[in-house]
Amino acid sequence: MQALVYGGPGRKTLEDRPRPAIVHPGDAVVRVTRTTICGTDLHILKGDVPDCAPGTILGHEGVGVVEETGAAVACLQPGDHVLISCITSCGRCEYCRKAMYSHCLDGGWLLGHRIDGTQAGHVRIPHAETSLHRIPPGADEEALVMLSDILPTGFECGVLNGRIAPGASVAIVGAGPIGLATLLTARFYSPAAITVIDFDESRLAVAREFGATAAIVGGGDVAGRAMALTAGRGYDTVIEAVGVPAAFELCQELVAPGGTIANIGVHGEKCDLHLERLWSHNITITTRLVDTETIPQLLRAVQGGQLDARRLVTHRFPLARIEQAYEAFGHAADTHALKVIVEVSEP
Amino acid sequence: MQALVYGGPGRKTLEDRPRPAIVHPGDAVVRVTRTTICGTDLHILKGDVPDCAPGTILGHEGVGVVEETGAAVACLQPGDHVLISCITSCGRCEYCRKAMYSHCLDGGWLLGHRIDGTQAGHVRIPHAETSLHRIPPGADEEALVMLSDILPTGFECGVLNGRIAPGASVAIVGAGPIGLATLLTARFYSPAAITVIDFDESRLAVAREFGATAAIVGGGDVAGRAMALTAGRGYDTVIEAVGVPAAFELCQELVAPGGTIANIGVHGEKCDLHLERLWSHNITITTRLVDTETIPQLLRAVQGGQLDARRLVTHRFPLARIEQAYEAFGHAADTHALKVIVEVSEP
Repeated sequence: MQALVYGGPGRKTLEDRPRPAIVHPGDAVVRVTRTTICGTDLHILKGDVPDCAPGTILGHEGVGVVEETGAAVACLQPGDHVLISCITSCGRCEYCRKAMYSHCLDGGWLLGHRIDGTQAGHVRIPHAETSLHRIPPGADEEALVMLSDILPTGFECGVLNGRIAPGASVAIVGAGPIGLATLLTARFYSPAAITVIDFDESRLAVAREFGATAAIVGGGDVAGRAMALTAGRGYDTVIEAVGVPAAFELCQELVAPGGTIANIGVHGEKCDLHLERLWSHNITITTRLVDTETIPQLLRAVQGGQLDARRLVTHRFPLARIEQAYEAFGHAADTHALKVIVEVSEP
Repeated sequence: MQALVYGGPGRKTLEDRPRPAIVHPGDAVVRVTRTTICGTDLHILKGDVPDCAPGTILGHEGVGVVEETGAAVACLQPGDHVLISCITSCGRCEYCRKAMYSHCLDGGWLLGHRIDGTQAGHVRIPHAETSLHRIPPGADEEALVMLSDILPTGFECGVLNGRIAPGASVAIVGAGPIGLATLLTARFYSPAAITVIDFDESRLAVAREFGATAAIVGGGDVAGRAMALTAGRGYDTVIEAVGVPAAFELCQELVAPGGTIANIGVHGEKCDLHLERLWSHNITITTRLVDTETIPQLLRAVQGGQLDARRLVTHRFPLARIEQAYEAFGHAADTHALKVIVEVSEP
């Protein structure tokens, strides 16, 4: 099979690899039909994720068809059409039993990180019964690839942790794919105002199309401009969807007394927390690695028409041209790429 | 009347002042029977609270007897025995109507800060109907003075914000009066373990008497020693009851995945937030200025015997000797003072 293999910082190659086999009785082997590229894959390639060993096949998102199951797998069969969660969960440990799958003691973020991932013809999925989701016949695969990681991330880490409520004011700092996925799912809860902040005007235009009530270009007195929209009151929910100290610090300026800052960004360094101002502000700050506990809920929202997941898809490439897909995704300021579908095989 | 007056950084004097009068129709004048000293009073005297003007009578805690009420006060009468909330609340603004009284648009922390306080023979209480609590006949005044600020602070900012649950593990960083008030109210929720950390061995001994399951002396590898008690798992709830960056940073080392850091400490400077580690840790951080919304609940807990508020009281002085009371409270390492009752008049 073809597979995109991480070769150490700055290196990746499309190689021929043997099809994976069942290793543990709870495994399934899935033939990948469609996958995508995540900002985290770019982090790996930058060398920011040192526990990803060279030789690992990249990718942690995708849909496909079950080809083979281990002896312990009862509720999945070859031929089942499935969505792959970016989080592998044993379903049995203390964390899984409180739906905190991201911290599964025998799982978590494994695919394309600690074990071979989905940017390949086939992928082995450990704990398949609790890490794959059967998808309805005739489902739109491109939409559902968005449910492996990006939409549950925006929804769980941003919208749910941020306790977005009807009538509330929301600020989203960062209009990349994650910020936009957050925006799409924030609208479930009918907030009164959603202000999106980014440096990229074309992404802000997309944010407006996706339902932002205001779009603010970063730089200068961005906090003052954003606060003016709330008459100085601040935002009930502020979502950090960038992953750099300056963005998290901006969030601290925007949050209203009693409000919440929900961090989604993947941070590589510490940042300043202005407790000298915030200690008395009655605020909440949350962090979360996506648990994907909401995949079934989001699947129903896609099927029911409440969530148009496909809007995030801007580009398509076959697996044979995945390196061009990385180019398009990695230079989004020029290509205006949001999510890039990689077509691997027919469903 | 006698009153302790703030004279600018480092200065306070016991002076004769006229008895306060009704200014607004919602006011009451209360004859103070007992008051106490708070760590915040020491902050004012250090010059850390620049919006407290010289000439202000100090103090924001106490019990007393209503002597006079304004024309708009219907539910209080002269002779009523009352507990004074440290937070004044109009009961009408947006914040009051969601029980966030600390941010009342015409109140908040006013007493002994922006208006004259309780370390005096009498005090004027604005918005009296929503800032005073009638207390039951025969109630123990010394116990109830602890309900003006310190016990609701420990309970609301630490225990409730920290979501302490039965069977959970709790770490309290700081065994001063606030840390100990938190410990007393943490026990309402039957956590499995409460580890208290402080540099002062005598305060740790008190923490043990108050129900701590472990007491750890600060310094050296304090995080390692505290984590060892959880087999490396970390604490479900970590409470910062000091107000310095080092204490808040220790909390970040102790919190378990999925856990909560509840800040109580009054911070004068920013601190480091280790998002490079915590972004994926599924944690919650909360800050809060006490709202005193739980005073009625804590009154019932005192009356019902679930909360022995009197345990925090170690010293007593008459108002005429309040400067000695400050000495005792300010040098707690030597005097072993927790809370100091100042006796003003007979109930």
